[in-house]
Amino acid sequence: MLKELKREAYEANLALPRHGLINLTFGNASAIDRAKGIFAIKPSGVAYADLKPADMVLIDLEGKKVEGKLNPSSDTPTHRRLFLAFADIGGVVHTHSSHATSFAQAGREIPIFGTTHADYFNGNIPVTRKMSAQEIGGGAYEWETGNVIVERFKKLDPADFPAVLVNRHAPFTWGKSVAKAVEVAVAVECIAHMALMSLSLEPKLKTIEPALLAKHFKRKHGPGAYYGQPGHC
Amino acid sequence: MLKELKREAYEANLALPRHGLINLTFGNASAIDRAKGIFAIKPSGVAYADLKPADMVLIDLEGKKVEGKLNPSSDTPTHRRLFLAFADIGGVVHTHSSHATSFAQAGREIPIFGTTHADYFNGNIPVTRKMSAQEIGGGAYEWETGNVIVERFKKLDPADFPAVLVNRHAPFTWGKSVAKAVEVAVAVECIAHMALMSLSLEPKLKTIEPALLAKHFKRKHGPGAYYGQPGHC
Amino acid sequence: MLKELKREAYEANLALPRHGLINLTFGNASAIDRAKGIFAIKPSGVAYADLKPADMVLIDLEGKKVEGKLNPSSDTPTHRRLFLAFADIGGVVHTHSSHATSFAQAGREIPIFGTTHADYFNGNIPVTRKMSAQEIGGGAYEWETGNVIVERFKKLDPADFPAVLVNRHAPFTWGKSVAKAVEVAVAVECIAHMALMSLSLEPKLKTIEPALLAKHFKRKHGPGAYYGQPGHC
Amino acid sequence: MLKELKREAYEANLALPRHGLINLTFGNASAIDRAKGIFAIKPSGVAYADLKPADMVLIDLEGKKVEGKLNPSSDTPTHRRLFLAFADIGGVVHTHSSHATSFAQAGREIPIFGTTHADYFNGNIPVTRKMSAQEIGGGAYEWETGNVIVERFKKLDPADFPAVLVNRHAPFTWGKSVAKAVEVAVAVECIAHMALMSLSLEPKLKTIEPALLAKHFKRKHGPGAYYGQPGHC
Repeated sequence: MLKELKREAYEANLALPRHGLINLTFGNASAIDRAKGIFAIKPSGVAYADLKPADMVLIDLEGKKVEGKLNPSSDTPTHRRLFLAFADIGGVVHTHSSHATSFAQAGREIPIFGTTHADYFNGNIPVTRKMSAQEIGGGAYEWETGNVIVERFKKLDPADFPAVLVNRHAPFTWGKSVAKAVEVAVAVECIAHMALMSLSLEPKLKTIEPALLAKHFKRKHGPGAYYGQPGHC
Repeated sequence: MLKELKREAYEANLALPRHGLINLTFGNASAIDRAKGIFAIKPSGVAYADLKPADMVLIDLEGKKVEGKLNPSSDTPTHRRLFLAFADIGGVVHTHSSHATSFAQAGREIPIFGTTHADYFNGNIPVTRKMSAQEIGGGAYEWETGNVIVERFKKLDPADFPAVLVNRHAPFTWGKSVAKAVEVAVAVECIAHMALMSLSLEPKLKTIEPALLAKHFKRKHGPGAYYGQPGHC
Repeated sequence: MLKELKREAYEANLALPRHGLINLTFGNASAIDRAKGIFAIKPSGVAYADLKPADMVLIDLEGKKVEGKLNPSSDTPTHRRLFLAFADIGGVVHTHSSHATSFAQAGREIPIFGTTHADYFNGNIPVTRKMSAQEIGGGAYEWETGNVIVERFKKLDPADFPAVLVNRHAPFTWGKSVAKAVEVAVAVECIAHMALMSLSLEPKLKTIEPALLAKHFKRKHGPGAYYGQPGHC
Repeated sequence: MLKELKREAYEANLALPRHGLINLTFGNASAIDRAKGIFAIKPSGVAYADLKPADMVLIDLEGKKVEGKLNPSSDTPTHRRLFLAFADIGGVVHTHSSHATSFAQAGREIPIFGTTHADYFNGNIPVTRKMSAQEIGGGAYEWETGNVIVERFKKLDPADFPAVLVNRHAPFTWGKSVAKAVEVAVAVECIAHMALMSLSLEPKLKTIEPALLAKHFKRKHGPGAYYGQPGHC
C-alpha cells in the first residue's frame, strides 16, 4: 500500500545521516499523501543501516496506524499535528543537527545575517516558547510539541518560514515534498553554523536590510521567482 | 576461548575511529562475560587498521591475563575497576573525543541544555575531582583513575549517568553491552559539541527544566519507556 | 561548441562540493574563452549529481545566451561584470563556504594573520560596501553585485587580491584559469577558518609584518617567484 | 638510489591530506638516511594526487641536490637546518593544519591542558619569536626559519618537544622516523583543537599539574615506559 510514498519517506530518512544531520537514530522524516490523508514515517529507534522502505509505518490523520509491523517514531504526533495545521506541506523532517540544536537549546531564534538565509526564510528562523510542565508531563508530550509550534505560527506563514526550533529541543523543517524538507534541514544547519560564527565575530551584529531580504527570498519564491529552471520547484 | 566476546570488543574498538571519536591509537573498548568474570580488551598501542579479533586480550577481574599474546591496553586497570564497581554494565569505552575532552580538560561538567542530552543522562555529565600527586605517581595510576570515577558515583546510579569525564583527561562511557557504550560515546561527543556552542551563544545559560528532563529520560529508560521497538534495549 | 571550455567549467563546478565548499546548489563556477569573448557557466538550480559538461550554458560578454538548453546561473551577470572589468582573469568561482561567508555576513575583511594568507593575497581579503536598496531592487541586482565588487577594486589589483567578500552575501574568487579560481576558493575558506580561530585566541590580534607579507606573496607571484616548478603557474 | 627512503617520504607526504592536515599543496614531509647524510623531500607545488615515490628529491646536508628532476619543496632549507641541529631525528613534517596554525598566527604557545597533550609533549608546545625583516628578506628566509626554531630549542630537548609553532606561520614536527613525525602532526592538530575549546570554556584555565604531566609523558617515553608493545617505539 502506498509503495511510492513509503519509498519517498525512506529516501528522505536515509538522506539525513548522509548529509551529516543525524547521529545514531536521532531524527525522522515523513511524507504525506494528501488525497488519502495518510503519511509514511520512520519506525522508532531502528538503525539507519537496517532500514527498508517497507519498514515505513503508515499513519492516518487521526493518528491511527494503517499499516506497518513496527512502532512508528515516538515523534509521530508532532508530525501529525503539523500536517493538520499546515495544509500545503507534503513532508516533515526532524533532526538534532548540531548547530541548529545549539540555538534551540539556548532558546534563541537564528538571526538572518545573509543571503544564504534569505534564500530560504523570510526573516529569522523562529523558536517556540518553552513548554509547560503540564504540556510535557500530561501524557501527550509529542502532540503538545506540535501545538507549541502551531502557536508560534499564529501570525507566520509556514511557506515563508519552513522551519522552527523547538525550545530546548531541536529543529523541525517542512516543504511541499519531504525531499524539499530535507533540503531545508540541510540549509538550516548551514545557516545556523554561519550565524554562530558571525556572532562570534560581531556579538551585536544586526540582521540584514529589508531590501536584500525581499530580493533574495522573492528571487526563489512566489510569482516573480527566476532562480532555477522553469517548472523546477 | 570466548570468541564471541572478543569479536564484540573488536567491533566496538573499530567503531570508535569510524565514528570519528578516535585519532591515532587514543582510546579503547572492552566487553565482559559476567558469568566467567573475564573481559576482552584492546591491546596497547596497536593501530586500528592492524587489529584482529584474536588480538583482543582476555583479563579476569583480579587483573590476571587469561589469554593473549599482546600487552593489554595500559588503561586496563581502569576498565577492571569499573567492571567491579558497576555490577550491571557489560562494556566500557574510553575515547579522547575532542569536544568531550575539552570539558574534561577544563574540569567542567557538561551541563544538560536540551533533550538530546536528556535522552541519555539524568542530569549533567559528571566530572571527577583532580587526582592527587600520590594517586598519579604511586604506581597504580590507572587503577586510581578508576577509583576517582567510583568515588564520584557514590551517590549516582551508573545507569542514570552512563559516562564520566576524568578531570584533565577524557571521557569513559559504559552500558549494558559494549555496543551500547559505543553509542553513549557518540552521544557524549555530540552533546559536548552542542553544549559548547550553546554556551558560546549564552554564557550564563541555565540547564533544562526538571519536567523536560524527566520526560525525555523516562521516554527511553525504565518501566514507562516507549521509545524504540518492544524488546529493543 | 567550445567543448573544452564547457568541460573546464564543469570540472570546476564539480570540484566545489568535493572540497566541501558547497552545500545543495549554492555556488557556481565559470570559465572564459577570451579570444571568442564567451564564457561557460553552470545552469541555475541543477543538483551537482545531475550535472553534465553539455549542461554548461555559453554566454557572451553582452550577456546573450550563445548556446544551452537550460537557464544559466542567476549569478551570471555578476560573473560577466567581473570578466569585463578584470581583463586578465580566466575563471570566476562563487561559493557560500561557511567560514568565509561568516566574515561576509559580518561585513568584515579577513585580516591577514599568517603566511597561508600571504601565499595568496597581498593583504586583507577585501569586503564590498553594502548595496543600496536601489541597487538591490532596481531590476539588475546581480549586475550591481558585480559593480560593487569592481568599485571596491578601484585601487586594488585583482591579481594581488584574487577574491572579495560581498557584504551580507559570500565570497567570489578568480584566477588565470577557473581551476586556479577553485584553488583560491579552497584557500579563502581555510584562511577564514584560521582567522576566526586566531581572533578567538587574540581578539585584538594585529596583521602580519610587511616584510613577511612581501616575502610570502612574492615567493609565489611575480618575477622573483621560486615556489613550484618552472612553467608551473 | 635510496628507494626505500623515497618511499617512506612519499608515504608520509600522502598521509598528510589523508589525515586532513593539508589542503591544496600546503605542507611537506622529509625522511633522512643518517648514514649517507641524505634526505628525501617532496617536490615543490606538485598536487598530492600526482605525486609518485620517484618524484621525491634527494638532498644532502650541505643542501646540494643529489637526485631528482623536480625542484625540492621551497621549505627544504628549514628541513635541512633541523636535520643538522637535531641529531636524533629521522623525519620532519610541515603542515598548515588549521587549529595549530591558529595558535601560530596568534604567536601563542599551545598550553598543556590534558593527558592527550602530555602523552606527546613534556610541556607547552613552544612558539618561535617573530623573525626580523632582515631574516625574512635577506635571501635565506627558509634557512632562517630553521634558525629561529633552533634558537627556541637552546634549552629544550627536541625529544621532549617534538614540534614547534613558527610565529605567524605554522607547525613543524619531527620524530625518530618520518612516520612518527606524521603521528605527532596529527596529535598536534588534535591537541590544538581541544586547547582552543578548553580556552573558550575557561579563558584563564591553568596548565596541568606536574605529577600528571610527568606520569603521562613517562608512560610513553624513556626507560620506564609501559605503553604499547615491547619493541614498539
